[in-house]
Amino acid sequence: MSFERSNIANMQGYVPGEQPKQDNVIKLNTNENPYPASPQVQAALEGIRLNDLRLYPQALAKNFRQVAAERHGVKEENIIPTNGGDELLRLALTTFADSGEIIATTQPSYSLYPVLACIQDCNLIEIPLLDDWSMPEDFIDQLNSLQAKMCLLVNPHAPTGKLITVDSIKKIASNFPGVLIIDEAYVDFVDPSESYNCVPLIREYENILILRTLSKGYSLAGLRFGYGIAHKTLANPMMFKTRDSYNTDHIAQKLATAALQARDYVEANWETIRNSRTKLTDALNQLGLVTGSSQTNFVLSQVPAEPGAEALYAALQERNILVRYFRQPRLEDKLRISIGSEQENAALITAITEIVAGQAPRV
Amino acid sequence: MSFERSNIANMQGYVPGEQPKQDNVIKLNTNENPYPASPQVQAALEGIRLNDLRLYPQALAKNFRQVAAERHGVKEENIIPTNGGDELLRLALTTFADSGEIIATTQPSYSLYPVLACIQDCNLIEIPLLDDWSMPEDFIDQLNSLQAKMCLLVNPHAPTGKLITVDSIKKIASNFPGVLIIDEAYVDFVDPSESYNCVPLIREYENILILRTLSKGYSLAGLRFGYGIAHKTLANPMMFKTRDSYNTDHIAQKLATAALQARDYVEANWETIRNSRTKLTDALNQLGLVTGSSQTNFVLSQVPAEPGAEALYAALQERNILVRYFRQPRLEDKLRISIGSEQENAALITAITEIVAGQAPRV
Repeated sequence: MSFERSNIANMQGYVPGEQPKQDNVIKLNTNENPYPASPQVQAALEGIRLNDLRLYPQALAKNFRQVAAERHGVKEENIIPTNGGDELLRLALTTFADSGEIIATTQPSYSLYPVLACIQDCNLIEIPLLDDWSMPEDFIDQLNSLQAKMCLLVNPHAPTGKLITVDSIKKIASNFPGVLIIDEAYVDFVDPSESYNCVPLIREYENILILRTLSKGYSLAGLRFGYGIAHKTLANPMMFKTRDSYNTDHIAQKLATAALQARDYVEANWETIRNSRTKLTDALNQLGLVTGSSQTNFVLSQVPAEPGAEALYAALQERNILVRYFRQPRLEDKLRISIGSEQENAALITAITEIVAGQAPRV
Repeated sequence: MSFERSNIANMQGYVPGEQPKQDNVIKLNTNENPYPASPQVQAALEGIRLNDLRLYPQALAKNFRQVAAERHGVKEENIIPTNGGDELLRLALTTFADSGEIIATTQPSYSLYPVLACIQDCNLIEIPLLDDWSMPEDFIDQLNSLQAKMCLLVNPHAPTGKLITVDSIKKIASNFPGVLIIDEAYVDFVDPSESYNCVPLIREYENILILRTLSKGYSLAGLRFGYGIAHKTLANPMMFKTRDSYNTDHIAQKLATAALQARDYVEANWETIRNSRTKLTDALNQLGLVTGSSQTNFVLSQVPAEPGAEALYAALQERNILVRYFRQPRLEDKLRISIGSEQENAALITAITEIVAGQAPRV
């Protein structure tokens, strides 16, 4: 017997990357930050009192919204705190996309989008990126001929690491009448020389919703804290209608607020990861794994036919090194590799060197 | 300009009870527990390591599910951990109730239900309880003639505190072909002499979904942790399809697991609150506020025309005592009062005594 709605009965759930049980694993498969959160977050954790947990948290996460608004130069009304970035995506669909409507994204893209579309009984249409992962010239025309209600863009892009410019986003927002979601989960790792900042666009464009998360840039994947930045036209219905009243908890609010306040610490962390990214990219290319430049905390590497991406993934897993393999069109010959610590990256390179050389001794 | 779906554009959001900013308030308005969580929860909090927050939490909250399953004598597959009980309710609607379908509940009931129904574009039908707050004899017939897809019952009932029996629930589950949600947010405060336990029913009835929360009985409203108990027919699609992959965070999982393990501590706490409830009920009745027996951590008191419920609510608020007033049919002459500590309850009684006596000196 099944009680499910037909769209739910017919769908497959999202499969998250593996979370290994043992401790001796080098985990480069789900884009976590290799370094812990700031001492300010530690202090906030130590400041949590059991007695404060008796009471419901701030329903509107007022302190967090104030700090986030100040950090981004917007108003409190523009900040939508959520239980992880994934919740913001779900909330956006719940609020703005009716059953049967079209949601557009690129191919490839974040593999959660199709799942969220199924849950909301929407049709997800994937517009293929060009071979160099840039957007097709007629992207806006395609969006509009689809009559899409919503467009989901991850920028910098996952899983390719490519960044599209603020001007491109502006052009889409101006010419597309639907809701444009810019999923900036990886934005903290963009090279500052790119001068990438979409936040000011929300003043002019009521249809832009920017997603931020503390999972990657702030080393807090375990805390589940994300937020949206948007004009109140989009923010208000999510804040006051569709969001669970207490969607973020007391501890998460306190730690997230502290995390955002420790600017110097996180900026140094991002710089470290960018430097590691450059080194890892060079080393992978030298090993024959074709790895383009990335603006995120991961790289996408094309693996030569020998050993092949899936076999390399499995051989690394045997050595307790986890990377991400997607059995998907255009990705089945590639691996997505998170930037680890210097030691982790070096261990990865050593392992790949051995596997590629066919020596592959077990460690 | 609005981008909202029409059902969202036309709805009003849920208004949670006030969360006062100042500290010197006696807070009896949102059914929080007056005593803090157990020392075991404190130890779990102290055991949280920043470095563990770098990584995504257990997607399936495996440790918590094991402990909860053992606690209730069910299997892990029967436990659905959620970000507060409200998330379980939302997930159930998302998974099982299609747009346009009928969801039934009682009148009165938890005021979040109509909001969740609006979000899912369902029609909520409220079946009035009898004057003594018991279920009408033909409740099942009404459900079935409505062709309801889902029925939401809060048991023990909010805001009246009344308990319906396991036999009544069994009878509904047997004769109603839809999903029957038993919202047991307050079940921990039921008198043990009632021998109330619906959990074993999930083996026989695939259509029962029981809601539990750590907000009240475990003094953890600020943590946001709830869970469902159900046959895997209902549990699986929520666990593996519609739930956000990482809906409960690392800290919440750890603290919730510790909370469930400290049985002796919470049972003593519940007994204390039951004793306070008896005393408070007697004192309110003596003051002319007609207060029936309650199986929850609150009472519902009918206030005489002088001073009237809304005026008494306002007069208490002036004295920094918060209780809950619902401007709703059948409730506008009543106040819902959470059971506080002995001191808080005594302060409430003193204040009401003064207000009723018309002395009402400001303190």
